[in-house]
Amino acid sequence: MPKNSAGNFFEDFSLGQVIKHATPRTVTSGDVALATGLYGSRFAVQSSDAFAAAIGYRAAPIDDLLLFNIVFGKTVADISLNAVANLGYAGCRFLRPIYPGDTLNAASEIIGLKENSNRKTGIVYVRSLGLQQDGGTVLDYMRWVMVRKRDETARSQAEHVPALPAALDASTLGHGCPAIDVGAYDFALAGSPARFADYEIGEKIDHVDGTTVEEAEHQIATRLYQNNARVHFNLFSEKQSRFGRRLIYGGHVISIARALSFNGLANAFHVAAINGGRHVAPLFAGDTVFAWSEVLAKAELPSRSDVGALRLRTIATKDRPCADFPHKIGAEYDPAVILELDYWVLLPR
Amino acid sequence: MPKNSAGNFFEDFSLGQVIKHATPRTVTSGDVALATGLYGSRFAVQSSDAFAAAIGYRAAPIDDLLLFNIVFGKTVADISLNAVANLGYAGCRFLRPIYPGDTLNAASEIIGLKENSNRKTGIVYVRSLGLQQDGGTVLDYMRWVMVRKRDETARSQAEHVPALPAALDASTLGHGCPAIDVGAYDFALAGSPARFADYEIGEKIDHVDGTTVEEAEHQIATRLYQNNARVHFNLFSEKQSRFGRRLIYGGHVISIARALSFNGLANAFHVAAINGGRHVAPLFAGDTVFAWSEVLAKAELPSRSDVGALRLRTIATKDRPCADFPHKIGAEYDPAVILELDYWVLLPR
Amino acid sequence: MPKNSAGNFFEDFSLGQVIKHATPRTVTSGDVALATGLYGSRFAVQSSDAFAAAIGYRAAPIDDLLLFNIVFGKTVADISLNAVANLGYAGCRFLRPIYPGDTLNAASEIIGLKENSNRKTGIVYVRSLGLQQDGGTVLDYMRWVMVRKRDETARSQAEHVPALPAALDASTLGHGCPAIDVGAYDFALAGSPARFADYEIGEKIDHVDGTTVEEAEHQIATRLYQNNARVHFNLFSEKQSRFGRRLIYGGHVISIARALSFNGLANAFHVAAINGGRHVAPLFAGDTVFAWSEVLAKAELPSRSDVGALRLRTIATKDRPCADFPHKIGAEYDPAVILELDYWVLLPR
Repeated sequence: MPKNSAGNFFEDFSLGQVIKHATPRTVTSGDVALATGLYGSRFAVQSSDAFAAAIGYRAAPIDDLLLFNIVFGKTVADISLNAVANLGYAGCRFLRPIYPGDTLNAASEIIGLKENSNRKTGIVYVRSLGLQQDGGTVLDYMRWVMVRKRDETARSQAEHVPALPAALDASTLGHGCPAIDVGAYDFALAGSPARFADYEIGEKIDHVDGTTVEEAEHQIATRLYQNNARVHFNLFSEKQSRFGRRLIYGGHVISIARALSFNGLANAFHVAAINGGRHVAPLFAGDTVFAWSEVLAKAELPSRSDVGALRLRTIATKDRPCADFPHKIGAEYDPAVILELDYWVLLPR
Repeated sequence: MPKNSAGNFFEDFSLGQVIKHATPRTVTSGDVALATGLYGSRFAVQSSDAFAAAIGYRAAPIDDLLLFNIVFGKTVADISLNAVANLGYAGCRFLRPIYPGDTLNAASEIIGLKENSNRKTGIVYVRSLGLQQDGGTVLDYMRWVMVRKRDETARSQAEHVPALPAALDASTLGHGCPAIDVGAYDFALAGSPARFADYEIGEKIDHVDGTTVEEAEHQIATRLYQNNARVHFNLFSEKQSRFGRRLIYGGHVISIARALSFNGLANAFHVAAINGGRHVAPLFAGDTVFAWSEVLAKAELPSRSDVGALRLRTIATKDRPCADFPHKIGAEYDPAVILELDYWVLLPR
Repeated sequence: MPKNSAGNFFEDFSLGQVIKHATPRTVTSGDVALATGLYGSRFAVQSSDAFAAAIGYRAAPIDDLLLFNIVFGKTVADISLNAVANLGYAGCRFLRPIYPGDTLNAASEIIGLKENSNRKTGIVYVRSLGLQQDGGTVLDYMRWVMVRKRDETARSQAEHVPALPAALDASTLGHGCPAIDVGAYDFALAGSPARFADYEIGEKIDHVDGTTVEEAEHQIATRLYQNNARVHFNLFSEKQSRFGRRLIYGGHVISIARALSFNGLANAFHVAAINGGRHVAPLFAGDTVFAWSEVLAKAELPSRSDVGALRLRTIATKDRPCADFPHKIGAEYDPAVILELDYWVLLPR
């Protein structure tokens, strides 16, 4: 029986295959503290038990992207250890608040496979679930990733490109957010008076601040997620790669952008869903990340008068402040852009 | 409604203005662990629930400077985002022990304003309070900071330089320390037999050890405090600054000096007050910090026979061991000195 | 009364001397989270309260090497502050599972002293105990370390080289592991189907993954253990040393090797004992660590049918993948080898 694993290659996956991932994880206030040290996020709900309890949470829930990154991390050893690139996300919904003490598991289904014409790689489409200790689903998302073949002559077992939702309908949002007592929501403590009604479709917000990433930081973050993809840790092997250095995990970039977005979106306390995301360019240690957001849409939630949803596009850049909202130059991304994220957040009404 | 903020400029402040700061924070054992990893502090009271409970605490309280840095961090977005320099501290008292699970808030009052003659900057004097979830004050301190003007032609709304105490009287100390059962205080476990009576006024102590600071470390620390001053994080902007690189947050330096001071002050388990502090020179990543202390005064506390107070001057240096107690050369600071801190600590009698 | 300490020198130790070490430490879920961020370990038992409770633990115990490193850290200020080299470990047994909330102390006995012929250094043999708050022993190990003399003319107070066990007998193992309900052990969640019976004596396993160490990472780790040996932190002094830079703490290397060993030993959930260990060569920041293991022996435990013990030799290397199992070239170690560790792990049967 082989004991170790170099990860799955494209031809190892089969359509409909279900994978139960290692390693279960009890999330703790220690994880929360380390995430605070790594991102400096300042959203009041996730920072203060007292604030969260006053508005209707049991206690301060863990940051939604910490949840995402922990669940994602579990999928890496089985899905993307031999990935060339993580191509995108779709249909990602946060379905329950998670608190320190909760235990997370993950499982995935292979929902699509498509070999590339070069016969060296293929696209694996996967739907992954984050599961709580009681089996309930806390996170549900799809991603697609380009994976190397072990053997160029191997034939894919099936070819199927699944339909992926362009965006989640607002009617599907809100399961991850309890009923909020907006009267108890202290806007001064939260850092801004701006509520749902104060944002307009088309409004663009520069998040102003920039933060430089160090090798130790992204490595500590990515290990915190128990994500063992060697591109993030192994300088010896990555020196031989196309980049010649360690690549920063995409989820680290997303978490940085979310933390930066506090300056302009202080009351957007919950990421309810990610419609789609694209890592436009790689980020490396020493680069400084900036971000800006545009309000793409606004929506009320069915039967809820407490919170409303903003659909945002957040663009993160490297070594490029965002006062002039860099995005695309013609059909091409501005060369400074590293992330485009399309997602729904909830704000008090 | 503007959503983001570039921080307040000198002319935005008014005398008597009261500011309630974001973001509330529940302190956890995760914060404590990360602070241990960043500073390696070895004071027994803050390290061991069993030790702390034996002598009269409810459990191990959080490190006093962790408390200070968390409260300070909350004030940055409103007070010092456009600071040129943090000039000093005065009248800082620690009024309650804080334990994991407690939630901290902060509020400030503008107590003085003085424009500089260059019309480009002014001094903002502020009194800040750290508040517990029940509204009780846990920390009370003044600082003054040089802040840029947005518009050189703007007129200050008032000019007032407040009276600042040179030092706190020992009679005001001790509120942050419960009654200590000195009989239960295990001096071997604490690391030294030296009690209050064993220190003499004028005694100088070299803290021997040195510690080198890395970019990732001070960034993680400063983000742990949710302090978003760009000088500490944003290499892209700081490359254009007078220093050409990221400046290490002064509170990080104070915490390093305090941790180093264990070697010589192992039983000085509680910082009761900070009389004054000055960041004499900047610290940068790669520098190695050393420290030494002098006993400036000794005092008994009113109605307490359990603990006594030492007034200390701790000097921190960079790349300069302190066996010969470097301080000033004539009227000028030794060029290696980065911090002069004047404070009261409590020791068992 | 001298207040500070530069540590003990060889001639300060006496045979039979017993030292009670500072600083007591309550281990928390914060320590666990930071260790996860530093090593990325993926063993299910230490990661998930639910997994651990299902098989018979009270909750997720802390990682055995985190326990080892915390206890070891306490001994440094008294034993090895003036060490030239940490020469070896023997007879190390883990006797109780430790959970967040437990408080750890440490005490040591000097069991051997042998001056070196150069009269400049000597070997100190020490037996150290890790103690729980109730006084019970949780860790028991011997190490020997080469320590500088303060004064070359000083005479050692006694000379004695103790008998050190080459390896622990399997009959002494298992006290640190509760009765395991193997039926409740979820091998898919744990990451591998391989049980005790699936490993063969002589089997070699490449752990595949490599991880690069940054200065901030090993410093944070070593401070987390409250280990204040200056060789790990003080660039100013270490620039003058034989290496010209900071040396990474040996326990950090062991923890890295253990975390890497998950890929091939996923169900080896408990380190029951360390028979011996040798830091063959120093590790520095920027180096990438790889590891492989060989099964040296297998043993059943007295009166236990739940778990079996594997005796492993794990070799860690720097900047050298381990697919071909580098170890020795003739009588000499392969120049890439940095660690040889001989230890017992427990697996479900």
